[in-house]
Amino acid sequence: MDIKKYLTTRREWCNRYITEYMENRCDDSFAKLRDAMSYSLFAGGKRVRPILVMAACEAAGGDEKHTIPFGVALEMVHTFSLIHDDLPSMDDDDYRRGKLTNHKVYGEAHAILAGDALLAEAFRVLSRPDLYPPVTAETGLAVMREVAEATGICGMVGGQSLDLLSENKAIEPDNLYLMHLCKTARFIECATVTGAILAQADEGTIESMRRYGEDIGMAFQIVDDCLNAAGDEKIMGKATGSDAERGKATYPALYGLEESRKKAHEHVTKAIDALESFGPRGETLRQIALYIIKRNR
Amino acid sequence: MDIKKYLTTRREWCNRYITEYMENRCDDSFAKLRDAMSYSLFAGGKRVRPILVMAACEAAGGDEKHTIPFGVALEMVHTFSLIHDDLPSMDDDDYRRGKLTNHKVYGEAHAILAGDALLAEAFRVLSRPDLYPPVTAETGLAVMREVAEATGICGMVGGQSLDLLSENKAIEPDNLYLMHLCKTARFIECATVTGAILAQADEGTIESMRRYGEDIGMAFQIVDDCLNAAGDEKIMGKATGSDAERGKATYPALYGLEESRKKAHEHVTKAIDALESFGPRGETLRQIALYIIKRNR
Repeated sequence: MDIKKYLTTRREWCNRYITEYMENRCDDSFAKLRDAMSYSLFAGGKRVRPILVMAACEAAGGDEKHTIPFGVALEMVHTFSLIHDDLPSMDDDDYRRGKLTNHKVYGEAHAILAGDALLAEAFRVLSRPDLYPPVTAETGLAVMREVAEATGICGMVGGQSLDLLSENKAIEPDNLYLMHLCKTARFIECATVTGAILAQADEGTIESMRRYGEDIGMAFQIVDDCLNAAGDEKIMGKATGSDAERGKATYPALYGLEESRKKAHEHVTKAIDALESFGPRGETLRQIALYIIKRNR
Repeated sequence: MDIKKYLTTRREWCNRYITEYMENRCDDSFAKLRDAMSYSLFAGGKRVRPILVMAACEAAGGDEKHTIPFGVALEMVHTFSLIHDDLPSMDDDDYRRGKLTNHKVYGEAHAILAGDALLAEAFRVLSRPDLYPPVTAETGLAVMREVAEATGICGMVGGQSLDLLSENKAIEPDNLYLMHLCKTARFIECATVTGAILAQADEGTIESMRRYGEDIGMAFQIVDDCLNAAGDEKIMGKATGSDAERGKATYPALYGLEESRKKAHEHVTKAIDALESFGPRGETLRQIALYIIKRNR
């Protein structure tokens, strides 16, 4: 299969949904807030999470087309977290993917509000009446649970808290693992589990997706750390070395680059192992796992 | 009926639920974030929104006891909005209800994260499996829709955006109305509508609750403006006059105090009119409407 073509097509499906949603959402009284939200929604995101929802749904025997709004909701939550992570009181980043960060364009207050509104709108998308049916209300609620759990205290927001508290401190391997799990892996896992739930998969299949998602999520974050430490600034569209400068707890800081890359590979291998029972239907997810480890931005 | 006793009892039910929820939520790795959330959850809130959910549910013929988690979720969303509104880049308030604001105690980054996590946890509470049954999944989804709508771009977050953009500018009456509607009234309306939805009420009843909620919501915000302009600082636990200092668009600034109080009374009268079809069952909601207009903090 041509994984690049696969990813491009699905990225376009997501972009079309997001464009339509935002264009038809509320009148121009709210233009500044809506512009701030759209700015970050269209700042070059790879749509990894919605694509994982689609791919996991297909692998579990469902129809990927029904999953688009659910995947978009996850992308909105992801975008909220990026905007808030970049804020001056957090990581204080000026650029992301080669573009000015949200608060550099819209100011701090509106960057906070754009993130807040994206989080709320994500749950609005998940509860839109036109999704039910084909999806049942019970299935929708199960997805909400996953998303809320992966976002809240023990999810992404908790992970960002651990990240900030770890700055300029020695960190234990277990705590670094927990931080990456919360910050990144649990939400990637949420995407693959959402796909399986939407396919009405059985418990065993959902559990396999959970393991696959967690492992590619860990690999994803470790690769991110490695790119920050030694990536190509021109390709990445942002300054590298910022983690080291801020004394951030990262895999390269704790284990060195080579050992970190090895650990990322181990997670990818474990992720692919979790797909064993899927046979040929797991091929797209296998390709995505390999893609994650090879990416350079 | 003894409205004060009624309110106190229900406030305690909510507090008990919130305490149990937060105490059993995640391990101590996340202690700082959890503490920041609990600090604002227990900073003297009157629990107006959960109480309105209960009272509206009873008025519409439902069982108020089933509504507690739903009301608590609304209180979490409300608390998120207070924490973020107080931030230095927003209203920059040091005190609220006589206590230091969240960012003064936990720092700006953790105040932002505490708000974020409260918003996510609210949706987690709404989707907890032990609520379904007695509530059906369809009913739960309908509540989610109301909450997300009343929070997002055209809800509280949008209202805060309008509020910031209106500072030190002449404002048209229509825009001031829209701002108060979004910032406060739509979420109060969300509480009363949630109560009616949970009671499985018909469309007409839900519509009456919508009108009642919107009008007491408007009254609530106008009274808030009046208290900020001319309230007793000792009773309120925070400095008054801050709206005028910051050149905020408020009812007293546009209409003067006397005319504003008159408008608040008009909204309360309209709210009580909307309850006509409820007969004696609407009594608690009538008392709450009158309580809102008489409050001094």
